[in-house]
Amino acid sequence: MLAAELASRPLEWFSARGDLAEVVMSSRIRFARNLKDRPFPTFASPEDLTSAQEEVMSLLLSVEHLRDSAVYHIDQLDSLSRQVLLENRQISPALARGGPGRSVVTDSRGVVSAMVNEEDHLRLQVLLGGLNLREALSVASSILERVDESRFAFHRSLGFLSSCPTNVGTGLRASVMLHLPGLQRLGRMEAVSLECQKLGLVVRGAFGEGTPSQGAIFQISNQVTLGPTEEELEEKTSAVARRLFEEEMRARQELLRVGGENLEDSIFRAYGILTNARLLSSREAMELLSTLRLGSSLGMLRPMPAGFWNRLVMDVQPGRVQALRCPDDTDPSGRRRARAALVRERLAEMAA
Amino acid sequence: MLAAELASRPLEWFSARGDLAEVVMSSRIRFARNLKDRPFPTFASPEDLTSAQEEVMSLLLSVEHLRDSAVYHIDQLDSLSRQVLLENRQISPALARGGPGRSVVTDSRGVVSAMVNEEDHLRLQVLLGGLNLREALSVASSILERVDESRFAFHRSLGFLSSCPTNVGTGLRASVMLHLPGLQRLGRMEAVSLECQKLGLVVRGAFGEGTPSQGAIFQISNQVTLGPTEEELEEKTSAVARRLFEEEMRARQELLRVGGENLEDSIFRAYGILTNARLLSSREAMELLSTLRLGSSLGMLRPMPAGFWNRLVMDVQPGRVQALRCPDDTDPSGRRRARAALVRERLAEMAA
Repeated sequence: MLAAELASRPLEWFSARGDLAEVVMSSRIRFARNLKDRPFPTFASPEDLTSAQEEVMSLLLSVEHLRDSAVYHIDQLDSLSRQVLLENRQISPALARGGPGRSVVTDSRGVVSAMVNEEDHLRLQVLLGGLNLREALSVASSILERVDESRFAFHRSLGFLSSCPTNVGTGLRASVMLHLPGLQRLGRMEAVSLECQKLGLVVRGAFGEGTPSQGAIFQISNQVTLGPTEEELEEKTSAVARRLFEEEMRARQELLRVGGENLEDSIFRAYGILTNARLLSSREAMELLSTLRLGSSLGMLRPMPAGFWNRLVMDVQPGRVQALRCPDDTDPSGRRRARAALVRERLAEMAA
Repeated sequence: MLAAELASRPLEWFSARGDLAEVVMSSRIRFARNLKDRPFPTFASPEDLTSAQEEVMSLLLSVEHLRDSAVYHIDQLDSLSRQVLLENRQISPALARGGPGRSVVTDSRGVVSAMVNEEDHLRLQVLLGGLNLREALSVASSILERVDESRFAFHRSLGFLSSCPTNVGTGLRASVMLHLPGLQRLGRMEAVSLECQKLGLVVRGAFGEGTPSQGAIFQISNQVTLGPTEEELEEKTSAVARRLFEEEMRARQELLRVGGENLEDSIFRAYGILTNARLLSSREAMELLSTLRLGSSLGMLRPMPAGFWNRLVMDVQPGRVQALRCPDDTDPSGRRRARAALVRERLAEMAA
């Protein structure tokens, strides 16, 4: 079954090979590109979309990097597979809804995903673990260099054109996903958001625009794509990520001082519930796993490798847990039961 | 230190040697008696109380059963020792407040307690584990037989007189403490109360009149003391306790059917929290221990001997936990920390 296969492959970013992985979960570079002389997807007819799809596909599959990638036409996927690709961050919520000409070209480790006919004809993203925007930018750029760029809509003074003006220019969005339980518990996230805003970055919830934060997971990304160079955008986002890493580590030490035994209690309770509960919602699982990892970072619980945690936090998502454990179970309590069992088993394996 | 000593002695009723100990925690017989030709305590002057105290004491200490008992004059006790005697159920809340001439004569295992100058000049109680009202009545009667009963206020047609008309006649109150998590979870306690009322019994919270139920612990006792014989009162209360035992066991089976995985989840969560929390309030500890014992009774957790549970539920009470673990700690969070540590250790010992 495709969904189960998509959920059981170990994604590259789980491995947390980049820097500062105790806080920075993953780094993502995304480029927006549109074909010349064709209507942008938001204004295109089904026929336009299908023909744009053919052109983008042929451009992509000419790149050696991508030759072994899988191609998924969204409308041909069952909803569970779409959900897993979305949770894997291989496709966006907009692409997951499907429609004519909507596809994704992606490798099995989830590093490169090229979405076709999302808001733009091509959205190419590279996703790596830890803080590693520079390498992600270099991979994404080397793919684009191998594509015939003369086929993309480009304006001499504006740069690459896109459906939404916020993507015009470089078409680049550099974003990092961070685990910030210390800053969140100290009630500092609003201040952090404002601070990021001043630096031209935006803070969002774990699953992107419009989603609330769960499990103290946040995304930051550049707001502006026009003006600075690609390298400057990458560097700015990396610098802010490093700064947030330091603020978070200081916040954790401060929490240790001010949180005292209530903090310790909440950490051990999280452990007790996660290792014993028979039913877990994804929201509760994420909050408790976030607390567990904080406890491990503070030395109250045994060390927890970043890769172990990244994978577990993703595996408790609704689509992945269902694909991994109960693909045929449509009863929501079956999913909550399967999630609790998965968490118990993983934590027992780690303790063994 | 007295409080620590009072809290560490194993009380007889913890042992749960009586019948139906899976539900019936303890059985208590209490007789009210007042001295002839003296004002009842509620209307007595300090001098009256002191002189009544002397007379009651000399009556009591003439009984061989009681010769090895300790005598505590409440006003001479520190507040922690009073609290422990109260939680041990060796004295009542009214006696614990102290005042002139207020004392208790009690044995080290908490079986017999003779309270002096509570609402009546003498309140003699016998407390045993499990359902064992008959033996408790026989012990209490044999003590009273050895006292010169002619010294007590007695009315030919009414029987023994007391401060409160509800105790006139036999002066007997037969009560049992029950653990009814099944009936409570099914929302049946109101119906049970009404049913008991019709049979002339009253249902109260764990710590007697006016206290809310905690941890699904309830007391039932006879409402009327005038009319029936002592044996009839004992038999009626025992019969109702047996009936509630059966209703509770049926309720647990019903819960197993209707509660399904939510029930199982709450039981395992209770276990997870109790074995991991670093801070526990007495209320939370009692609720979770109640759930734990229900889980053990339903076969979801390992069997838990009634005696182990009785003792643990008492040891988490504020006075006992402080006396046992942190007698000099007046910080309330010290008590919550000590309670959590005590529970973790006991459950670990049981699991070992």
